[in-house]
Amino acid sequence: MYTINKDRITEKIAAFSKFGDLGNGGITRLSLSPEALQARAEFKKRAEALGMTVETDDIANMYATLPGEPGLKRIVMGSHVDSVRSGGNYDGIYGVLSSLEAVETIVKNNIPHRHPLTVMVWTNEEGARFEPAMMCSGIVLGKFTKENMFKVVERDGTVTFGEALEASGWVGDEKNRLNKDDYLCYFEPHIEQGPVLEEEGLEIGVVEGVVGMVNYDIILEGQSAHAGTTPQSYRKDALRAAAKTIMDLWEKLGALDNKLVFTTGQIMCQPNVHTIVPNYVKFTLDSRHQDMDVLAQVVHVIENLPKDVYGCKLSYEEHWGRKTIRFNDKMIGYISKAAEELGYSHKGMYSGAGHDAQYVSEMLPAVMIFIPSKDGLSHTVVEYSSPEQLENGANVLLNAVLAADAEM
Amino acid sequence: MYTINKDRITEKIAAFSKFGDLGNGGITRLSLSPEALQARAEFKKRAEALGMTVETDDIANMYATLPGEPGLKRIVMGSHVDSVRSGGNYDGIYGVLSSLEAVETIVKNNIPHRHPLTVMVWTNEEGARFEPAMMCSGIVLGKFTKENMFKVVERDGTVTFGEALEASGWVGDEKNRLNKDDYLCYFEPHIEQGPVLEEEGLEIGVVEGVVGMVNYDIILEGQSAHAGTTPQSYRKDALRAAAKTIMDLWEKLGALDNKLVFTTGQIMCQPNVHTIVPNYVKFTLDSRHQDMDVLAQVVHVIENLPKDVYGCKLSYEEHWGRKTIRFNDKMIGYISKAAEELGYSHKGMYSGAGHDAQYVSEMLPAVMIFIPSKDGLSHTVVEYSSPEQLENGANVLLNAVLAADAEM
Repeated sequence: MYTINKDRITEKIAAFSKFGDLGNGGITRLSLSPEALQARAEFKKRAEALGMTVETDDIANMYATLPGEPGLKRIVMGSHVDSVRSGGNYDGIYGVLSSLEAVETIVKNNIPHRHPLTVMVWTNEEGARFEPAMMCSGIVLGKFTKENMFKVVERDGTVTFGEALEASGWVGDEKNRLNKDDYLCYFEPHIEQGPVLEEEGLEIGVVEGVVGMVNYDIILEGQSAHAGTTPQSYRKDALRAAAKTIMDLWEKLGALDNKLVFTTGQIMCQPNVHTIVPNYVKFTLDSRHQDMDVLAQVVHVIENLPKDVYGCKLSYEEHWGRKTIRFNDKMIGYISKAAEELGYSHKGMYSGAGHDAQYVSEMLPAVMIFIPSKDGLSHTVVEYSSPEQLENGANVLLNAVLAADAEM
Repeated sequence: MYTINKDRITEKIAAFSKFGDLGNGGITRLSLSPEALQARAEFKKRAEALGMTVETDDIANMYATLPGEPGLKRIVMGSHVDSVRSGGNYDGIYGVLSSLEAVETIVKNNIPHRHPLTVMVWTNEEGARFEPAMMCSGIVLGKFTKENMFKVVERDGTVTFGEALEASGWVGDEKNRLNKDDYLCYFEPHIEQGPVLEEEGLEIGVVEGVVGMVNYDIILEGQSAHAGTTPQSYRKDALRAAAKTIMDLWEKLGALDNKLVFTTGQIMCQPNVHTIVPNYVKFTLDSRHQDMDVLAQVVHVIENLPKDVYGCKLSYEEHWGRKTIRFNDKMIGYISKAAEELGYSHKGMYSGAGHDAQYVSEMLPAVMIFIPSKDGLSHTVVEYSSPEQLENGANVLLNAVLAADAEM
């Protein structure tokens, strides 16, 4: 088995942590911000130093390619360099830098390979500045139109995505976009962003797919009334009804399947004044599971919630959902085999979060590798994976890529 | 028994409803706004036409006085002309106009009286533009300093209360403030703002006092986590914990006393994003009861809430409270006797809402009269009391004032 250099991957993470450094262990590196452009320039410099050629497509996705045998398709691996506000130094950037480290190992150790090897940086994965998340893999895969996305205005500002892209200096040619004629398969290493690997003492997550999800708004409509003058028995309190509904959802959804996750993350209350009984409360329900039959049961629970809760009218609006994505079995096999042969404890798992890989999987055989996240945390300045964990994931990537290179 | 003129009180309400008319049955007439200044001018014009002299004090409280026998103290009655945003045509203004109608009846019918009779308009009762509510009765009674109140900046703007007052043209002399040397007693008619009179089919509420209250913030602190990657069993969901706490409060407080009211009107959730488990939720608890022992039990319930709810830390902050105010028994007797002799169904009750009368009661014998509110609603454009209900309340006021005039 080949192995990458732990000191080098650690140095890479440390070097990129300067771009958007908040001084508290975390970063803010929004898509196409000055900090993100610095990270792109550093990536290009390091890739070119390894003999790679860097191209961009029309939405500034970056492709750094190490040559291989003429006529063979490229094996591509990578992730993103943008972060959320007050994010950490692992989400996204680890996928890019572990890929760069794998290529550096191949170059420095003269490891033979047949296929060109491309390391990718996706533009605007987080969607923290320009919504939605996974915008540019979404454009490449036809999920969103470029025209609509160019009009998206940044959060807390006036710049559009199109304007930010134009100003970035990283716009290239549309023909450089990821495509199935030039590319063979796709690998994306990532931190788990959840506690499962750490809790179970495992070193590697072999990501078999991305779970399906449903999203609902649940609405309770009551009657506003004066807090001092309205006896409890006359009240139609929408917040009380929402509290009851949240408790009911935990009871009913909690009984369905222990792998089901569901979240009531956002709540809006009107008029939201301490002396007025709330007349309107809306909260979100996000639920995810790899088995679409379980999600169908979630929908059944929502559809069968009582329509009257303490005199308030309950209704719901379905927003978007996604079906479960299953990654390519051969690609999953490469990850599993590499982890096994490297002696890493591992298990097959589904990603609960969305990743560019889920869109790419509709075009190319794709797969992901997870490494543990300390305390399961991500999208926070305390996000952390240890040098050994960074090393393990990059070792799995390197050997899986080489296996694909040999066999595919 | 003397009686006022139903058509005249109805006309008064209709005439003042033009000042701030929203075209949907309601008004917005914020304190010292152009609409409120129009209402003041109309009040002055009508009062002077009845032979009253209109004075203002240094915070623009208005005092329109019909002369009486020399050397006797003034009997004062009134309320306020300002409204909340999208308010109705009864809250506040009914107290002013029923008082004016009582005086008009005395003048037009040559009803003998001994004491000078003053109709008051309090500045900024609602606190909707400049917080807090009951600002100017509070200044007169020493609850707030004029200096601090003058610095209060309007909601959604930059004008201070002091600047608005200065610009209003209604500032008079501090020596005109309500005081116990010149004034005998205080009456305030008002809509109930609750459903009790209507539900019980009663015509008059004899207001015996204003209930005491406690105000708390209740805080749940958990751990934010990704909605897709964190199994339910690992979560410390602050919104789930808040929902549980709201349900517990309804159960525990609901068991204390059926006259206890409690409201969780405001909720704040962080980060309030549909894909993130909330780590911090704060909600308000407002609770009111006329018996301070019952409020002590409320405090006991709050202090004994579990400190850990689904892994979240529960804490609370006490804000302000107020003790129960009991109005003057002789004054209560005048209201009760007038209602009885007029043949109106009535009962003694406490106000759950605060009113200028509660501050005045610390200086002068004071009392309030309630008339029913349709569906218990106030602070809304659909606020409504019928012409008969307006008439009944003004008749009770007229006869109670005349009884006080004869006996006090």
